[in-house]
Amino acid sequence: MKKVAIVGFGTVGVGVAEILERNRASIAKKAGEELELAYVVDLRDMPDSPFADKMVKDFALVENDPEVSIVVEAIGGCGAALQFVTRSLQAGKSVVTSNKQLVAEHGKELIRLAKENSCNFLFEASVGGGIPLLHPLNRCLAGNVMQDVVGILNGTTNYILTQMLEEGADYGDALKCAQELGYAEANPAADVEGIDAGRKVCILSDLAFGKNVSPEKVSMQGITKIEAVDAKFAESAGMKIKLFGRACIRDGKQYAFVSPYFVPESYLLAHVSDVFNAVSVKGSDVGEAIFYGPGAGRYPTASAVVGDIIDIAANPGRVQPAWWEEEEAELADPAGFRTPFFFRTKEDRAQAEAKLGCAVRWLPEQFGWNGGLVECSSPAKMQASGLEMGACWPVYNG
Amino acid sequence: MKKVAIVGFGTVGVGVAEILERNRASIAKKAGEELELAYVVDLRDMPDSPFADKMVKDFALVENDPEVSIVVEAIGGCGAALQFVTRSLQAGKSVVTSNKQLVAEHGKELIRLAKENSCNFLFEASVGGGIPLLHPLNRCLAGNVMQDVVGILNGTTNYILTQMLEEGADYGDALKCAQELGYAEANPAADVEGIDAGRKVCILSDLAFGKNVSPEKVSMQGITKIEAVDAKFAESAGMKIKLFGRACIRDGKQYAFVSPYFVPESYLLAHVSDVFNAVSVKGSDVGEAIFYGPGAGRYPTASAVVGDIIDIAANPGRVQPAWWEEEEAELADPAGFRTPFFFRTKEDRAQAEAKLGCAVRWLPEQFGWNGGLVECSSPAKMQASGLEMGACWPVYNG
Repeated sequence: MKKVAIVGFGTVGVGVAEILERNRASIAKKAGEELELAYVVDLRDMPDSPFADKMVKDFALVENDPEVSIVVEAIGGCGAALQFVTRSLQAGKSVVTSNKQLVAEHGKELIRLAKENSCNFLFEASVGGGIPLLHPLNRCLAGNVMQDVVGILNGTTNYILTQMLEEGADYGDALKCAQELGYAEANPAADVEGIDAGRKVCILSDLAFGKNVSPEKVSMQGITKIEAVDAKFAESAGMKIKLFGRACIRDGKQYAFVSPYFVPESYLLAHVSDVFNAVSVKGSDVGEAIFYGPGAGRYPTASAVVGDIIDIAANPGRVQPAWWEEEEAELADPAGFRTPFFFRTKEDRAQAEAKLGCAVRWLPEQFGWNGGLVECSSPAKMQASGLEMGACWPVYNG
Repeated sequence: MKKVAIVGFGTVGVGVAEILERNRASIAKKAGEELELAYVVDLRDMPDSPFADKMVKDFALVENDPEVSIVVEAIGGCGAALQFVTRSLQAGKSVVTSNKQLVAEHGKELIRLAKENSCNFLFEASVGGGIPLLHPLNRCLAGNVMQDVVGILNGTTNYILTQMLEEGADYGDALKCAQELGYAEANPAADVEGIDAGRKVCILSDLAFGKNVSPEKVSMQGITKIEAVDAKFAESAGMKIKLFGRACIRDGKQYAFVSPYFVPESYLLAHVSDVFNAVSVKGSDVGEAIFYGPGAGRYPTASAVVGDIIDIAANPGRVQPAWWEEEEAELADPAGFRTPFFFRTKEDRAQAEAKLGCAVRWLPEQFGWNGGLVECSSPAKMQASGLEMGACWPVYNG
């Protein structure tokens, strides 16, 4: 019998408690022993919760109970969460979390702390929600030298982009719709500005390339500058617009950034709609593997958290391996990242080709804009061309 | 330093040796220690192999070397492979294999043997080649009660079907093309008759539902009866034809079978082309997760084998958990599996609807055949209708 405590009883915390209860028998089989929810820590009173008898307000009860070996952090942010995670690990208790901000900003020191205290700090749910992703990347594909990790890491923005493309909605209406459905928060900045995806890119980069990437080093461009006309151009060119997070090694340089991409329909990632996430992982030997699924939501996220709990219970005595070095990775400026581009302009084809110094695949005019595709360029080169552009987005080419 | 032996030095064996050598440094980091290839066992002389200095002919050298703790079985089949795997486990050496026949037919006893000898028997590469699939299914998603595992498990048949649909090739030509490219063997029966996919269905069912499924219990229908006209109908209805392996619980009954499916383009699985594999996993809490990648090939398969080797090295002292019960699962007859259907017939719509007793979505005539789609039926009901059909295939509806 292993005792588990949940700290923070919101969306994810409740989901974890419910799964531990509902799937108790099958979980015990996989974990090798029964898992018992011993405490739920939350400052709020919840007398009507089915877990009311487990609820306490004082984290010290968990910290000082030697029988609790696994703590689920479900508070969010880097305030109380960081404090309670730190104290749990110092007390030799393994911690599981879905808190991407915590992992992106403090993962390296928390992994060290886990190692020093012979316990584990696991966070499968922090990227891709319910999708098994970090574990496969870090373990199943461990024989590979990693090359590229790229994908749709934020469900809210993918929902908005899907609405813009399929329903012809413009950005403001699609955002409003996402807010009404509860997919986007009243203040959507973390999602639409690419900050959430950026934190996940840090974690993916840490694991794939072995050195720490801090969120402030990651170039994050969100979807707020995408207009309905861009979606029209994408459609006319047989593409979709997706917000990609990307961590990769290209021409010997390491990159980590978030950017909208035009994605040709020949790529599976173009077919990932609504709130779903998908990540493509390229390695020296596997070639390409893609992981798809629900990137958020109570039960999918809790499913990943419970998977980590079971992993800890099923491997008693395992000491956390050092997953990445604390040394900060040297990132190249994404302005130099070579890729094909889409752009739209009021100038004509001859002007565009002259300024860009290369042939352009010209697209049918949309809403008074001319659109074009260039084979290979970089953000810096596009900008330096002097071509006046209403928008300029990279085109995914694998 | 952990010593590894490879038994059988064909496609996969050579791939494993090369990866262990080429990615030595990064593998050592993930494994927590250096891995050294100590022996390659093969009856053939290979004096020109870069691994010639490791080659021996007598397996007993491996068996009796207490320093070898991990054995890679890369022989294939259930003859010598079964013997050497058994002897390795009895000697307390962990075994990694990509041999689906061995796992499907003898997995339960080999897992028991591993447990009895405090070592591991891992086989991530046996289903989906390089795709991380079994580990995510069995570990990351362990909090879920599983509902449905379905997908494209055989690259050869997916290549043939892609050719038939995209190039308008008929079955014989597409098979010949696959043979010329080395995707299909001279005797393609195991692939095209669904036997290979059927073995993988056993393994997926074992892991997802916890009881043993023997290959002879699995209904296997391959692609040999699919004609160019079926591909035409699929195209006209906005679908693709895919050979699916499926293990699921439906209406309280457990099913395991291999069958061609008409797959609407709204499903991601419809967009998996050529030799690639993809598997959809549905669970109580995750909803749906999909895993995509290369289902075969030297380096992808070896990538999965090396992942298992690293997993063993990184978890010293871990004892194999009992992954599934040896008791044989009770499988329902797939003739009763309720699903929508496509059929083609020479009879007319009124006759078809009268005999089937339900409305039919009629498709445009192709090559003199009438085609129709029915909402919900079962193979048994379709057959019992008395309608004369040239073909009848289930339609995937999630």
